Amino acid sequence: MNTPEESTLGIVGLGLMGGALALALRNNAVLGKRGRLLACDINTETLEAAQGLIDEGFSSPEPMLGRCDLVFLCLNPSTLLRFMERHMARFRQGALITDIAGIKGNIAAAMERDLREDLDFIPGHPMAGSEKGGFAQAGSCDFRGKNYILTPLKRNKPENLEFLKALIYRLGFGRITCTTAEEHDRKIAFTSQLCHAIAAALIDCEPDRTITRFGGGSFEDLTRIAMLNAPMWTELFLENRRELLDRIAQFEGSLDKLKTYIAAGRQKELQETLETVRERRAAMG
Amino acid sequence: MNTPEESTLGIVGLGLMGGALALALRNNAVLGKRGRLLACDINTETLEAAQGLIDEGFSSPEPMLGRCDLVFLCLNPSTLLRFMERHMARFRQGALITDIAGIKGNIAAAMERDLREDLDFIPGHPMAGSEKGGFAQAGSCDFRGKNYILTPLKRNKPENLEFLKALIYRLGFGRITCTTAEEHDRKIAFTSQLCHAIAAALIDCEPDRTITRFGGGSFEDLTRIAMLNAPMWTELFLENRRELLDRIAQFEGSLDKLKTYIAAGRQKELQETLETVRERRAAMG
Repeated sequence: MNTPEESTLGIVGLGLMGGALALALRNNAVLGKRGRLLACDINTETLEAAQGLIDEGFSSPEPMLGRCDLVFLCLNPSTLLRFMERHMARFRQGALITDIAGIKGNIAAAMERDLREDLDFIPGHPMAGSEKGGFAQAGSCDFRGKNYILTPLKRNKPENLEFLKALIYRLGFGRITCTTAEEHDRKIAFTSQLCHAIAAALIDCEPDRTITRFGGGSFEDLTRIAMLNAPMWTELFLENRRELLDRIAQFEGSLDKLKTYIAAGRQKELQETLETVRERRAAMG
Repeated sequence: MNTPEESTLGIVGLGLMGGALALALRNNAVLGKRGRLLACDINTETLEAAQGLIDEGFSSPEPMLGRCDLVFLCLNPSTLLRFMERHMARFRQGALITDIAGIKGNIAAAMERDLREDLDFIPGHPMAGSEKGGFAQAGSCDFRGKNYILTPLKRNKPENLEFLKALIYRLGFGRITCTTAEEHDRKIAFTSQLCHAIAAALIDCEPDRTITRFGGGSFEDLTRIAMLNAPMWTELFLENRRELLDRIAQFEGSLDKLKTYIAAGRQKELQETLETVRERRAAMG
């Protein structure tokens, strides 16, 4: 593979994350004079809006895929798997492919099993979304210092993994963690899906809109992510349901403990628990 | 009462909120040349640090209270009630007193019952805290545009209420809501105490510190308030326990609904719920 500067990069799907990747590639001057940024999206208005940001836009992937050294698939998990089935034959010989989906188990398994032999697919997850959706909001994603998870397959070529990591750092991300798809899905069920389920439940349980008069920041902070992309989060919740249900139960265990202390007026144990929590969270920075 | 510019204001307790009030009084030039800002705190280091910000500092309230037109009691709820019992006789004739405690029922009841006849006590709650604590962190509280709740007593003088409201707006707050102590405690149990209990449970249930490698903002946003002042929040949870336990149950009802949909793979109902949640939260701004 060439250096990023000289590569032809393709983005499939110019939604929030596809758009944010394109912006970061440009803002960080990752592509040199000989590099090219291609993108496809089914929405022609989005392609028009992306003029100037991308070198060429396509309303279907057929004419684009064969030209790309590296393809970022910025699609919902289910769409992504269908896309790979349908367009597998069109990728350039030896191309590197990566994705951005929030669950990795099903994708990693499908790619271990079905990927064309000469292609290299490195599953990835940039932890830098936003509650805002769509290409027009791409500027609201700030990659600087953020986490990026890769769940490499056994078959990935070391030089491709290194190429992708270098590119990710140049996009501004602060830390790359390589792990298994299983560990990713277990941890993400906690840090991401459980948090979204909690935010959704908080909004679902209180229909009174004047409640915002009593907001002091906590409620707003805990529920901002309730402005979620409903079809995508439905997919993520259902696809990772076993891990997510485990995590909800784990959370409920601690909430039950607090309830017990509160109901029984166990001041000492409640305060000790809150002290421990405070110290643990402060240590996380 | 004089205008705020000409008043002598006293702050009892230069912690996070006492300090933030002093800063806001100065930054917004609320006090004129003839106005005075006095403060007392048991911590002499804090008083030293506050030199320049306050006109005079006192390590005990005795010499201060008799000089103040308006006193802000910036104390934990239990300390506040003890303070009023102990120092009731020392306030200036006709003084206006207010507090900042996060629960109002017990304070309102005590003041309706026990307050010296010539004094006027207007219970208040500035919704502009910070997970950071102490006078040194006072600058982290930003009042601009924030909510302030007042729960006036039947006996409050209309001109005093108007004076306090004018002062609050001049401190930078964006909206004052006047309501009953009961409604305050019911609503705050939801927007504030439930959110803190959820954040605490999220941190309590996961001892793995490397989980931060898998953070993308949601987990961080939902748990920032877990860096709470443990003694104060223990008091708030226990003092408002009936409302808080009701609110936890209300939240658990919605979380159970989501669990049911996720476990049973009820894609349509899950997505509809998330759509409704998204719209409701977006409408909150």
